[in-house]
Amino acid sequence: MPPELSAVDAWWRAANYLAAAQIYLVDNPLLERPLKPEDIKARQLGHWGTSPGLTFMQAHANRVIVERGIDMLFVAGPGHGGPAMLAGAWLDGSYSERHPDVPRDAAGMRELFRQFSFPGGVPSHAAAPTPGSIHEGGELGYSLAHATGAAFDNPDLTVLCAIGDGEAETGALATSWHSHRFLRPGRDGFVLPVLHLNGYRIAAPTLLGRMAREEIDALFRGYGWQPLFVEGDEPERMHREMAAAMDACLDAHARIVHEGDGRPPMIVLRSPKGWTGPREVDGEPVEGTFRAHQVPLHVPREEGPHLRQLEEWLRRYRPEELFPGGRPSPQVLSLVPEGDRRLGATPHADGGRLMVPLDLPPAEDHALTLGAPGAVTDSATTVLGRWLADLMRRNPRNFRLFGPDETKSNKLDAVFETSPRYAPGPVRDTDAALSPEGRVMEVLSEHLCEGWLEGYLLTGRHGLFNSYEAFIHIIDSMANQHIKWMRAASETGWRAPIPSLNWLLSSHVWRQDHNGFTHQDPGFLDHLATKGAEMVRLYLPPDANSLLAVAEHVLATTDRANCIVAGKQPEPQWLTLEAARAHLADGFGIWGWAADDPKPEAVIAAAGDVPTLEALAAVTLLRRFVPEMALRFVNVVDLMALQPPGQNPDGASDDRFDAVFGTEAPVIFNHHGYPGLIHELTYRRTGHDLFHVHGYREKGTTTTPFNMTAMNGIDRFTIALDALERSGRTGRGSDELHRYCRDMRARQHEWSHRTGEDLPDIKEWRWIDSR
Amino acid sequence: MPPELSAVDAWWRAANYLAAAQIYLVDNPLLERPLKPEDIKARQLGHWGTSPGLTFMQAHANRVIVERGIDMLFVAGPGHGGPAMLAGAWLDGSYSERHPDVPRDAAGMRELFRQFSFPGGVPSHAAAPTPGSIHEGGELGYSLAHATGAAFDNPDLTVLCAIGDGEAETGALATSWHSHRFLRPGRDGFVLPVLHLNGYRIAAPTLLGRMAREEIDALFRGYGWQPLFVEGDEPERMHREMAAAMDACLDAHARIVHEGDGRPPMIVLRSPKGWTGPREVDGEPVEGTFRAHQVPLHVPREEGPHLRQLEEWLRRYRPEELFPGGRPSPQVLSLVPEGDRRLGATPHADGGRLMVPLDLPPAEDHALTLGAPGAVTDSATTVLGRWLADLMRRNPRNFRLFGPDETKSNKLDAVFETSPRYAPGPVRDTDAALSPEGRVMEVLSEHLCEGWLEGYLLTGRHGLFNSYEAFIHIIDSMANQHIKWMRAASETGWRAPIPSLNWLLSSHVWRQDHNGFTHQDPGFLDHLATKGAEMVRLYLPPDANSLLAVAEHVLATTDRANCIVAGKQPEPQWLTLEAARAHLADGFGIWGWAADDPKPEAVIAAAGDVPTLEALAAVTLLRRFVPEMALRFVNVVDLMALQPPGQNPDGASDDRFDAVFGTEAPVIFNHHGYPGLIHELTYRRTGHDLFHVHGYREKGTTTTPFNMTAMNGIDRFTIALDALERSGRTGRGSDELHRYCRDMRARQHEWSHRTGEDLPDIKEWRWIDSR
Repeated sequence: MPPELSAVDAWWRAANYLAAAQIYLVDNPLLERPLKPEDIKARQLGHWGTSPGLTFMQAHANRVIVERGIDMLFVAGPGHGGPAMLAGAWLDGSYSERHPDVPRDAAGMRELFRQFSFPGGVPSHAAAPTPGSIHEGGELGYSLAHATGAAFDNPDLTVLCAIGDGEAETGALATSWHSHRFLRPGRDGFVLPVLHLNGYRIAAPTLLGRMAREEIDALFRGYGWQPLFVEGDEPERMHREMAAAMDACLDAHARIVHEGDGRPPMIVLRSPKGWTGPREVDGEPVEGTFRAHQVPLHVPREEGPHLRQLEEWLRRYRPEELFPGGRPSPQVLSLVPEGDRRLGATPHADGGRLMVPLDLPPAEDHALTLGAPGAVTDSATTVLGRWLADLMRRNPRNFRLFGPDETKSNKLDAVFETSPRYAPGPVRDTDAALSPEGRVMEVLSEHLCEGWLEGYLLTGRHGLFNSYEAFIHIIDSMANQHIKWMRAASETGWRAPIPSLNWLLSSHVWRQDHNGFTHQDPGFLDHLATKGAEMVRLYLPPDANSLLAVAEHVLATTDRANCIVAGKQPEPQWLTLEAARAHLADGFGIWGWAADDPKPEAVIAAAGDVPTLEALAAVTLLRRFVPEMALRFVNVVDLMALQPPGQNPDGASDDRFDAVFGTEAPVIFNHHGYPGLIHELTYRRTGHDLFHVHGYREKGTTTTPFNMTAMNGIDRFTIALDALERSGRTGRGSDELHRYCRDMRARQHEWSHRTGEDLPDIKEWRWIDSR
Repeated sequence: MPPELSAVDAWWRAANYLAAAQIYLVDNPLLERPLKPEDIKARQLGHWGTSPGLTFMQAHANRVIVERGIDMLFVAGPGHGGPAMLAGAWLDGSYSERHPDVPRDAAGMRELFRQFSFPGGVPSHAAAPTPGSIHEGGELGYSLAHATGAAFDNPDLTVLCAIGDGEAETGALATSWHSHRFLRPGRDGFVLPVLHLNGYRIAAPTLLGRMAREEIDALFRGYGWQPLFVEGDEPERMHREMAAAMDACLDAHARIVHEGDGRPPMIVLRSPKGWTGPREVDGEPVEGTFRAHQVPLHVPREEGPHLRQLEEWLRRYRPEELFPGGRPSPQVLSLVPEGDRRLGATPHADGGRLMVPLDLPPAEDHALTLGAPGAVTDSATTVLGRWLADLMRRNPRNFRLFGPDETKSNKLDAVFETSPRYAPGPVRDTDAALSPEGRVMEVLSEHLCEGWLEGYLLTGRHGLFNSYEAFIHIIDSMANQHIKWMRAASETGWRAPIPSLNWLLSSHVWRQDHNGFTHQDPGFLDHLATKGAEMVRLYLPPDANSLLAVAEHVLATTDRANCIVAGKQPEPQWLTLEAARAHLADGFGIWGWAADDPKPEAVIAAAGDVPTLEALAAVTLLRRFVPEMALRFVNVVDLMALQPPGQNPDGASDDRFDAVFGTEAPVIFNHHGYPGLIHELTYRRTGHDLFHVHGYREKGTTTTPFNMTAMNGIDRFTIALDALERSGRTGRGSDELHRYCRDMRARQHEWSHRTGEDLPDIKEWRWIDSR
């Protein structure tokens, strides 16, 4: 082997030794004496199978980083191979910098092994405590999307993305192969995927592992790549071929940047599962089979053949040569990069360190000027779109907008004045707002939108994902995993906060009457709420200026998942920007202009734009028919503020909660989503038994906007009558209101079934202060 | 054109006319007089763009059904093209059979148009009220998975699956192209995908629409298909080519069945978006652009050029020829199949009609024989696996087990004795339990597992999806959509109930201590609960016999989504099969053998296997230290039974709830998942303020099983002390229990951090009746 490849091989053997030993050893880290039962972990955990492939890729990554002086981020799709990632970070010294209790010496090596997958230690995956990682890979499917997001607007970065053939079966990954079409060479960085065909999942072969080579080749050419194959199990030949492939890929990318055209290269690496591990155990083949997936050799804590086989396996790496005195040898370290170039130390993997806060445009420039509440009608997302256009103008390399083809249908298309959509293919003259210069990222895959955005955020940049409300559930699990990552990262003590993950859900449940039941689902709020207010905030701005106030707030936060639900249809406007900001700061509050009796008979509360509209209409009905009734109107913009400080660090105090909602009168709460969420957020409050929540009751179809509210009992008539009933009001005005509501419901039914539209009296209802 | 293709063309023009007219007309259905403003809908809704492609495919499907006498099911991925699907069903008469108010005559045609996307009418998509549909396509991505599931064990069925190029961008669809590898020719049916490249999503071009033809060809060859291209816009040539392609595909499939080998054929149909619709509107190109996606021509209800353009467009189809007297002409009907062969009438699209109940094995044959509660230790899923093996033996063509490679790791591998995994590729001698005869369907894609199972259920067969608990969130949105479909289907009045959708979540939050935080998420229960007890049931069997009782119950239900969470680790066993069945019938109840004081100072309740174990351990601690304390122990196996009858038709009455949980003593509730769910399910109960719920608090990492419970406060010490505190007990025994718990926590911490395992006193705890 040329000396250079000998050094690569030495690093690889060192990393393999460290990876295997993490699974097994609590002591005797350098095998300075024969292995004894007490050197062995009682509980052997970890994934060996993928590890030698991951160390192989890292070894070759190190070589090109050093030789070419490039910045590289390594994304380990098979993040289960935590031992391999920890081995790499320990070898390059970054691990000891982040974990000073694990120095790069014999004592540190012992601790590296002991702590792995151990109480009080570190997780078995490439998790937040792993230096150099932005991707845990606990749930599979998102590596290539994360890698792509990391490369956006990072023209000098190479993202080496290891993709397991198990992960390659997932939907998210299967469509991620199209991601390269969204990278603009020269503006964005270089994503180099290495598809690792080691052939097996936990207990069975993988699909791609058993496909013929010509099929694999056709598949990836079809996706638009130029695949290079590196296949085998003989280390020297594999090192030569992998080194040549890495060089060829980097050269090819340079040509593409220079010439502005060409097929992006990728590597297909076919190597045995559990490469260099036990060939056979108890007569069963292991290396190169599914049996190598996790712990290939179970070693009881007793003298016996398995203990001896483990020792024989580990000694084959020749630890005494690799770690003289417990430190990596000069040869092992000869191809390890330095400083921030180390894979474990790249600032791109600790994106908060690179984060530049957004230059937020003054919302004043875009806010609606209002007269009396309800006098102006406008579309909230249209107003936000103008502010976002301004934001994108001020932050031309630091912010992107993501969405599955819904920028226009969600009425954010003012952004196209600043940036069109990115064109992933040829542009025709009949296309609109589409350009290879675009920074609005549209693809009909919520997985890609979310994964790209996560990768962009994890590397320190900012973004917003806009989606239809119902279909954001497609990425429920990705949201879980990103929030878990943020939580774990914030507990490391060394990771810098990253920009928050922000969703704008428009085309929401109450205004999908034309699209039908499949498009009507407000449950993402409920899903996120399970993750707790330390990490999650839910915003239901009631109008355009509130949406602006929420947007400027969330885009300045870090380490949060912020979900905003706001309609796109023209609706009455209630708050000035100043009032909206104050309302947001409070989270919820009394709208005195609507109703503010100090001793109300009923409190009418609302969260969400449509529920607010209906609740205010209910107030006017009550005023008209029962003018002497004492009412209070409360609006909630920050749903999690309903939780007390014990559950939400920014939750409203009990005093404030009680002062706003009262503790005696019934609270008729009109909620955007499923009613249960309001009960859950308020159940620790004094007056929680007084809450009667209306919300989405899973009733829907293709109908009119008002009929949707009526089907679910959040309409003005239901709210007004419920307030009447629960306050115990009876008598003349009450009877008249009942009659009026009955009559209006009948008229609406007849009219809407005849015309397909809402009754003009309902559709054109405007707030009039009747006091 | 040959007469046969003239007939195809006539049907196509008729269907296009009907599709377009549904979007616009409330009257004058046959254009017997010039269009007037009042003939036009005020609100024009629907998707025109995809419709002519869908009608084109149906027209050609009809031809081969009639000519070859085959059974076919049509799955419309672009289900948004509801007008096309409704048109087809009206033309073949099946629509009028299901909707007698819409006969196949002029009056019926008027009603067909009026009701479309109209209050009180039918949704704009291929929804449950659409005869012949099993797939709405409201949320995109699942057509090919549904089609594949429909084809399993239906060797004589051809499933024609239309896939839009928008949908083709989704993750679920991108991996669904591998589905053909899971179809066994001769045993399973023929799935014929038609990728419809009409080039545009709602506002921009599609990825696949702008890929070069050679790239498309390579991509699908790489996926393993033999693609046939049909491209153009000239109807006659397109009819000839499509007919030839359909014949070639059916012939190729017959050869594959005969020879047992060969590449499955597919069709790539490239035709203009909004084909045959307006070429230009107001000077902007429409046909063949994104502008044709929804309503291509907005027609105000007034005289003017748009009204005239609409009339000109509709008259181009020559309705007077196609519908003499309002009925389809003999030529139009000449290639419409008859009876159950009609696409709108196939029983496969109303699977409940074909459903054969499962032959359930007696659980008695597999139940554990128990002595005293807790004396036997076993793994619940291992026991279930043996029952499932028996089930699969008794139902060799009617049941499949689905899962992402977790059958073995979830300890269900006894099923392999009856059926190995299906082998989607070559089998090697180092593989285990893998065969082309297999009926256990494993692929590392929750989307495929779920989509295949849904397709299998929708066509009347039975199945179970087993998954890791955390990752089932990947299909949150698919669960939503299937439940919405079942709800809408049950409201049609004519669709027969279909077998329930059943999930078994093992490898659950409390026993993923070795895999870390990413694998710890019990939120699928919360997600499902939003859909309501009419559709959803959540089961937390506390032991193996309970799991058997739940399994035999859910597999006999219809039109439900049943979620079962059960651990795979060996745990103490509590109930005989008889007791387990009685417990399940009750939903929840007092476990008298554990504690049953008629006037308890505290009620200790639990739902879930690990919470039950910890809660029972807490009871023994209280007995030991405070023997005079009056306790009651309650277990919940059917979570939704906590809801009152008003919310759950099978919910427990208030009397029973109060009798079991009491209305005076504090209830310390140890829950498997997030605590909020228990509050939500019980908040309407009298004593709900007495509930103090412990559950998963989003704390996790790689640690020991007990440490996981302690981090989240569901451990025995926390439960015992909470019961003590909330009951107001103080004094000697109480102080000693406090000391004991403090001591045990310290010992556990020290031991687990030293050995990586739980303290033997904790790990080996067994219930001993100490009364």
